[in-house]
Amino acid sequence: MKKQVIIAVDGMGGDNAPVEIVRGCVQAVKDFPIQVLLVGEPTVLEKELANYEFDKNRLLVTPAMEVITNDDPPVVAIRTKKDSSMVVGLKLVKEKKASAFISAGNSGALLTGGTVLVGRIPKVERPALAPLIPHKKGFSLLLDCGANVDAKPSYLAQFAHMGSLYMEQVLNIAQPKVGLINIGTEKEKGNDLTKAAYELLEGAPIHFIGNVEARDIPSGVADVLVCDAFVGNILLKYTEGFGLSLFDIIKEELTKNFISKIAALFLKPSFKRVKDRFDYTEYGGAPLLGLQGLVVKAHGSSNSKAIYSAIKQSLHFIDQEVVEKTQNIFGE
Amino acid sequence: MKKQVIIAVDGMGGDNAPVEIVRGCVQAVKDFPIQVLLVGEPTVLEKELANYEFDKNRLLVTPAMEVITNDDPPVVAIRTKKDSSMVVGLKLVKEKKASAFISAGNSGALLTGGTVLVGRIPKVERPALAPLIPHKKGFSLLLDCGANVDAKPSYLAQFAHMGSLYMEQVLNIAQPKVGLINIGTEKEKGNDLTKAAYELLEGAPIHFIGNVEARDIPSGVADVLVCDAFVGNILLKYTEGFGLSLFDIIKEELTKNFISKIAALFLKPSFKRVKDRFDYTEYGGAPLLGLQGLVVKAHGSSNSKAIYSAIKQSLHFIDQEVVEKTQNIFGE
Repeated sequence: MKKQVIIAVDGMGGDNAPVEIVRGCVQAVKDFPIQVLLVGEPTVLEKELANYEFDKNRLLVTPAMEVITNDDPPVVAIRTKKDSSMVVGLKLVKEKKASAFISAGNSGALLTGGTVLVGRIPKVERPALAPLIPHKKGFSLLLDCGANVDAKPSYLAQFAHMGSLYMEQVLNIAQPKVGLINIGTEKEKGNDLTKAAYELLEGAPIHFIGNVEARDIPSGVADVLVCDAFVGNILLKYTEGFGLSLFDIIKEELTKNFISKIAALFLKPSFKRVKDRFDYTEYGGAPLLGLQGLVVKAHGSSNSKAIYSAIKQSLHFIDQEVVEKTQNIFGE
Repeated sequence: MKKQVIIAVDGMGGDNAPVEIVRGCVQAVKDFPIQVLLVGEPTVLEKELANYEFDKNRLLVTPAMEVITNDDPPVVAIRTKKDSSMVVGLKLVKEKKASAFISAGNSGALLTGGTVLVGRIPKVERPALAPLIPHKKGFSLLLDCGANVDAKPSYLAQFAHMGSLYMEQVLNIAQPKVGLINIGTEKEKGNDLTKAAYELLEGAPIHFIGNVEARDIPSGVADVLVCDAFVGNILLKYTEGFGLSLFDIIKEELTKNFISKIAALFLKPSFKRVKDRFDYTEYGGAPLLGLQGLVVKAHGSSNSKAIYSAIKQSLHFIDQEVVEKTQNIFGE
């Protein structure tokens, strides 16, 4: 029999903590044969847990008396707030007391803490944060959206590898198509970084489809999109902002007169379906790939469904031994 | 009395040449007291012109027997196709026989040709291509979207200056707000390029509002958005692709059943207004700023309205002596 999987969850991180975090964890222990360690202030978490019925042996509170807020500077926060839910949670992974840590808290602190406390897999040059971004037919993994804003070509080649492995093992996509985000499709297009990265990707044992122009990202041409973290963050945030603004504009125009208001009422279910196709909560969080354990960044405004999905996705990751497979790819 | 303004237009460039190009030029000479030189193959252009009534002294064909296509490699095309409509048109600006050249043809070739044939203003390190991108309340000038994919901080500072001048003089925006596209709002955020550029922008005599995160671009926080051409091209193309895909998704969902189909019919005018708010044809083309004359890149799929608007905007540019003012800013 396999050992029971233990997942640590930051009970204090994100806009909807602790209410939604706790609810997501309760649902997860109901549906999966796992143990969840909810990390944070015991009085706060116990009070919230009191609202639910659940198996008390499989959902436990791990005490941590401090909280890292979104205003805390990442490096300082990780160094000084030793008893924060984030630091305590990351240490559980480091000490193999948990197989994963999920947090909706301060992204920068989680990136720093993941690298410093959990540590890189040997031979992985830099860990990468890999969220999913929506396209017409589904989602693509976009990496890096983390800290590598001045990346080297070799980082991008490793990101491609790790992203491909993740999509294959965790999201069950056979032979994931890997594209290099660039300003033209021809090999010789781009800046110094992408031109050099292209050469490396061509020789890599992945399904490299070449350069992907930004205009083609929304049609879903690639399963894995590789870029430096400056470009990744720009694309990720722009997607969010652009989607919201466009829906605002549509709403404004559709409620301008009586007839369109009535017609729009009939279209509410259709618009809901459009929005649902952009719903990240189905897909859990963004893994920090390349570490010696699993660290997952859940969206800051995660609801219980997003936390539940992040836990579910972590189980695939652990089950498929992605950390071990990454180690094998790059060598010990 | 002022000298009559002469504008050269590429009669052969773009998806809708020569039909839409010719129609836009005919309309422009009707509405403005200018002379237009339509550059291209005389037989093709004369045949098209034969469909219209216009003042034959103010709309003339300048012969050019070759065409640079979108498949031509830019540098080679400019060097070898000496009798192409693009090279001939750019030379008209170089030789001061025209005050502007507008083309919907090969972007790379126009960038190369503009720099090589028309030439930079002394002290301008690099010319920048500056299109407008849509936001909730209007449009922002995004630069560079041209060739500077590996930019230096000093380039970005000059782009900010030139973009600010353009928005003020040509689009009549008082004290344009200039933002640096970045992955965080704090001064210390970003990559090596943006961190160094921030320092330069802080000291510049422009209305610098600091870093702008990509998520805030669609709300219209800045009139001028500064970045390197890699990021600029990514944002520009992604905007186009994302908008199209989202409309596709909405259309798909809205036509899924009978009731929503009927309701959607009533909303056609509302959706048209949404699309119109993204209509680039109102705003003409993207100027190539920093040259010793005006070169304008019109969208590849420009219709007559886009060409007309590009001509109209060029007149403001010439009238406001933007080239001369740019020279004054950076010194002779």
